[in-house]
Amino acid sequence: MLTGMSKLAKFIKPYVVTSGKGFRLKDHDPIDTGKLKLDKDSAATMLREGVERLALLQEQLYAEQSRSVLLIFQAMDAAGKDGTIKHVMSGVNPQGCVVSSFKAPSTEELSHDFLWRCAKVTPAKGLIGIFNRSYYEEVLAVRVHPEFLAAQRLPADCLGKHLWQQRFEDIRNFEQHLVRNGTVVLKFFLHLSKGEQKKRFLKRIEDPSRNWKFSPSDAAERLHWDDYQKVYEDAIRNTADETAPWIVVPADNKWYTRLVVGATVVNALENLDLKFPTIDPEARTRLQDARRLLEAD
Amino acid sequence: MLTGMSKLAKFIKPYVVTSGKGFRLKDHDPIDTGKLKLDKDSAATMLREGVERLALLQEQLYAEQSRSVLLIFQAMDAAGKDGTIKHVMSGVNPQGCVVSSFKAPSTEELSHDFLWRCAKVTPAKGLIGIFNRSYYEEVLAVRVHPEFLAAQRLPADCLGKHLWQQRFEDIRNFEQHLVRNGTVVLKFFLHLSKGEQKKRFLKRIEDPSRNWKFSPSDAAERLHWDDYQKVYEDAIRNTADETAPWIVVPADNKWYTRLVVGATVVNALENLDLKFPTIDPEARTRLQDARRLLEAD
Repeated sequence: MLTGMSKLAKFIKPYVVTSGKGFRLKDHDPIDTGKLKLDKDSAATMLREGVERLALLQEQLYAEQSRSVLLIFQAMDAAGKDGTIKHVMSGVNPQGCVVSSFKAPSTEELSHDFLWRCAKVTPAKGLIGIFNRSYYEEVLAVRVHPEFLAAQRLPADCLGKHLWQQRFEDIRNFEQHLVRNGTVVLKFFLHLSKGEQKKRFLKRIEDPSRNWKFSPSDAAERLHWDDYQKVYEDAIRNTADETAPWIVVPADNKWYTRLVVGATVVNALENLDLKFPTIDPEARTRLQDARRLLEAD
Repeated sequence: MLTGMSKLAKFIKPYVVTSGKGFRLKDHDPIDTGKLKLDKDSAATMLREGVERLALLQEQLYAEQSRSVLLIFQAMDAAGKDGTIKHVMSGVNPQGCVVSSFKAPSTEELSHDFLWRCAKVTPAKGLIGIFNRSYYEEVLAVRVHPEFLAAQRLPADCLGKHLWQQRFEDIRNFEQHLVRNGTVVLKFFLHLSKGEQKKRFLKRIEDPSRNWKFSPSDAAERLHWDDYQKVYEDAIRNTADETAPWIVVPADNKWYTRLVVGATVVNALENLDLKFPTIDPEARTRLQDARRLLEAD
């Protein structure tokens, strides 16, 4: 992986959306692999180096016990969320990293406000939290499927014409609150083309070892492709912010997806200027006392 | 208790703060008992009637499964939070009412953002949630005691000069989010005079059956009385809103405190125009089918 902060920042720059103004999904090409001319092997080497760097940074984050990191992954089916989480985060101590997957909400979850189930499991200080899907589904799947909204049993006066704008605002406010309280928030949209999704679906159907990854409902959901592209674009437009950016990651090449995600996380952690905590002279004296005690044991 | 919506609304009006503009605590007299000339017995009768009304309204809220009610109680020690919760809510089915008491935060709670422990336990649809103290302590006790803030281990760049204004904003945004999603939010400040607190503390010390309610640290905390009045005033100024009002309840007379709180809750529930859910003709047919099945049993 590229090393040095500025190189990393430069590498990810085309994908980082810090303001929704003028954002258009069609300006982003799912097949893009930047200016890198890499074979799979050297890409894998770069990723491995990044994962090693990440493991060290995570340890410092954990030791500092002051900040949290929240990585949100959103994407169409088969865009590679699970694979990316697996390949980018596998080097990290699981004690410092908590993955929460949000699927169809339970009855209990539906009986609370739409941020509740995610707010409960935001990462504690020192931890990296990963949301595999998130409250963004509340302005994505719920927007595409009116029956999901109906299931939330909101009172009629809470269903006005500003509903989606209010949800965007609630999400912005929630993320602002997290950032103000020491959480780094990064939101990844793995941007897949419709053609590549078809290819991956067919592979999941043909390859018995991948059958478990496919449900017939995935093909039905694909019929809403254009609606989803529209609501994704609108969600990114309304929630991209300097302090809680979206990263629109080209997803037609898995190796490149992982590289961009890994580089973004490493870059964000580098920017925190983390250090293992040092102790004051008094505490150091107490450490020496402890050493004498142990030695006399 | 007074009946009819408008009478109730008129009764509580002097205590409801829907805008912080120009709010001053000294305009509110802790000894106020409104225009009521009541003996203790007739006050108790009024309260009992209110509690009965509340029990019915709560059942409708529960049946509707669409809205929640959040009652937040804040006050100086011995202002009567526990007694008020007990006397106003005792008629309500406990299955529909959840009380959360927030004391000194645990290590786990300190490792999350300051809203986290409360956001986790907001009331589900159909429920009345009661917060005995709340996230407001984060702009009250934490403001009076800098050591409480230090214990939160916030990164240095999260401790700017706008910290309290940001906390107020985060609280306003959080409550706005709850309201938008169908929760009624009412915030009660039980407004006690310093003289009455002294009397109640002495009673707790003298009466063995009340000893458990007193801790020597309560007397120490009383030394910060003026600071607390100041931060309470500032908190109410910055978080009173039409949709999430503060109710500044005179607290020197317990019977009156309970009456005002009870009236406020009943009034808010009356305003929701709750009804037991009715069913559509198709569902009614299914009910009749079920009846035939049972009768043939």
